[in-house]
Amino acid sequence: MSVTAAQGFTAAGIAAGIKENGNPDLALVVNTGPRRAAAGVFTANRVKAAPVLWSEQVLKAGRLSAVVLNSGGANACTGPQGFQDTHATAEKAAEALSVAAGEVAVCSTGLIGILLPMDKLLPGVETAAAHLSEHGGEKAAIAIKTTDTVHKTSVMTRDGWTVGGMAKGAGMLAPGLATMLVVLTTDADLEAPVLDRALRAATRVTLDRIDSDGCMSTNDTVLLLASGASGVTPEYDAFAEAVRAVCDDLGRQLIRDAEGAGKDIKVEVVNAASEDDAVLVGRSIARNNLLKCAIHGEDPNWGRVLSAIGTTSAAFEPDRLNVAINGVWVCKNGSVGEDRDLVDMRYREVHIVADLAAGDATATIWTNDLTADYVHENSAYSS
Amino acid sequence: MSVTAAQGFTAAGIAAGIKENGNPDLALVVNTGPRRAAAGVFTANRVKAAPVLWSEQVLKAGRLSAVVLNSGGANACTGPQGFQDTHATAEKAAEALSVAAGEVAVCSTGLIGILLPMDKLLPGVETAAAHLSEHGGEKAAIAIKTTDTVHKTSVMTRDGWTVGGMAKGAGMLAPGLATMLVVLTTDADLEAPVLDRALRAATRVTLDRIDSDGCMSTNDTVLLLASGASGVTPEYDAFAEAVRAVCDDLGRQLIRDAEGAGKDIKVEVVNAASEDDAVLVGRSIARNNLLKCAIHGEDPNWGRVLSAIGTTSAAFEPDRLNVAINGVWVCKNGSVGEDRDLVDMRYREVHIVADLAAGDATATIWTNDLTADYVHENSAYSS
Repeated sequence: MSVTAAQGFTAAGIAAGIKENGNPDLALVVNTGPRRAAAGVFTANRVKAAPVLWSEQVLKAGRLSAVVLNSGGANACTGPQGFQDTHATAEKAAEALSVAAGEVAVCSTGLIGILLPMDKLLPGVETAAAHLSEHGGEKAAIAIKTTDTVHKTSVMTRDGWTVGGMAKGAGMLAPGLATMLVVLTTDADLEAPVLDRALRAATRVTLDRIDSDGCMSTNDTVLLLASGASGVTPEYDAFAEAVRAVCDDLGRQLIRDAEGAGKDIKVEVVNAASEDDAVLVGRSIARNNLLKCAIHGEDPNWGRVLSAIGTTSAAFEPDRLNVAINGVWVCKNGSVGEDRDLVDMRYREVHIVADLAAGDATATIWTNDLTADYVHENSAYSS
Repeated sequence: MSVTAAQGFTAAGIAAGIKENGNPDLALVVNTGPRRAAAGVFTANRVKAAPVLWSEQVLKAGRLSAVVLNSGGANACTGPQGFQDTHATAEKAAEALSVAAGEVAVCSTGLIGILLPMDKLLPGVETAAAHLSEHGGEKAAIAIKTTDTVHKTSVMTRDGWTVGGMAKGAGMLAPGLATMLVVLTTDADLEAPVLDRALRAATRVTLDRIDSDGCMSTNDTVLLLASGASGVTPEYDAFAEAVRAVCDDLGRQLIRDAEGAGKDIKVEVVNAASEDDAVLVGRSIARNNLLKCAIHGEDPNWGRVLSAIGTTSAAFEPDRLNVAINGVWVCKNGSVGEDRDLVDMRYREVHIVADLAAGDATATIWTNDLTADYVHENSAYSS
């Protein structure tokens, strides 16, 4: 279902030959209206790929007719030629769809520092345009995979309207503002400023809080397109909740498919002095390689949680910290708590609660364990 | 040679039974004078081990007669009992050596969150005191090893005076102010404020700039003891240079022995707007797991260097960044540079130069690659 679950959208996913192995590598998503409102959030990385620079500019008008996405190359750190290639891609899609190039966003993913094979990509855009379908969402989701082992889609249907989406991402997964490539669509009849508000509110507490490997991408992009085709204008709160639910679902799917990961780790920081403190501490725990190795070994090594908390500037007293792993309070008041042998870590999901005893704010960061498979996947070849 | 290379020091290293495998686990270093000046720097981690809290207090008087060091347990996150145990250790050493407990520093290293076996440690202090020798530096260096595969010592001899030292550390190696356990000794005739100044100046640009795995310890301690036994009072600059040289040498030995590492990576940031910027960028590169995996795979993946630089707040323009790997400028002006196939990465040392083109400040951070062996070493058992 993916991006075509909502009314007013068509999509396609094809193999344009960008990937040498012949797998699908080009997706096209088209908003057939009647409304063509849109919002987007992008990576906070200051080294931004050409398609991010282009799409940020396009989104300023709050209007998108189409999105072209390719895997097989990130078009990042490719200089002026890279930007010209993104521009040419948008022009080609605009021509094929009879829309303005300034209404076409472009997203790319793959290896940094190589130019895209435009002799394959541009004809691919024409082919994709010829294959657009109201049932094309699945194929589009498949075409944007890189090291992903599964494609990721999500749909939430409400009273007469729907929010759907697709995502890709398996490594370099530590969004600064958005994450990876995500395209969300809705047939709700809403204007761009409302979409923007709902999208930023949703990503702030979902995609922005997954942190698989601490490495922020140059290409992160999340787009939300509204067709208005349902004729329904939902209340803001209901709409924002649906967008948040889809983002949360897609974010969880990204974590479940993270490179080499054997565990999904929910780091929940409670009783923080502020939400900022909770996020800071959660991220510090989530990025601690030693803890991530320990979780891989099913070792409830709470000392590594405390040493990670200790590197932050958050408000806390060391002798009031408490830590639970899978429900067992293995650390109480900064020291030895319940018997660590009571902790059962056999399952994929691991739940760490860090109690700062400094207030009532909370935040949850999702991360993964660190495994030999992650090392292999990121050392055996360029990615 | 180690801590007994300088005149006016004795040391011992014994097996007290703290480690279950019977390996040496207790070291004692004694300053026999005539002067007993000292300085110390400690971890910036806010979760500090009991021995760090004790030794910080002791060092305020700028005077140390002895240092007791144990491996086999960090005595961190052990509550009031842990602090009492450190105090009892200092008292026992003071009694055996006929000095004041307030002149005895204590250092511990090993697993966080377990109490030390005081029934073994206290008799061990007596045994160590009975084995003190002017040739005991080597044994002391061996007794403080944990996952270290080799012991680390360094000696610099100058005009009539000497600076020597020992260090331990192989993981949780990302010092915030100091690193791991390091004891330096000198027979130069200097007072505590001079020692303090030279030690802080040295660690700031040496031990503080190694970052093996981004994980800051709860126990980092660097001590510098001066006996005055040479009768020579060197110029400050000459002394500071010798301390810096010993710290640099020990820091490099720590990196060479880092857990599971196959490569030593020198990250040199040049043409930064400030030294702070250079350190910030160098650390961001050094902590990037994807880059560390790529280096492990001997892949000159400069895109990962740029994506790491892009996450920082340092002054730079993305399209003016240059990156060299082992002498080949694979990235020029933020885009593709010289042929990456020219990069030879067969040897253990890898040299990355990141040119920010934003000023004339520079800094070097040393780190390691990320390997399956690191994951294994930190997941197969508690450490």
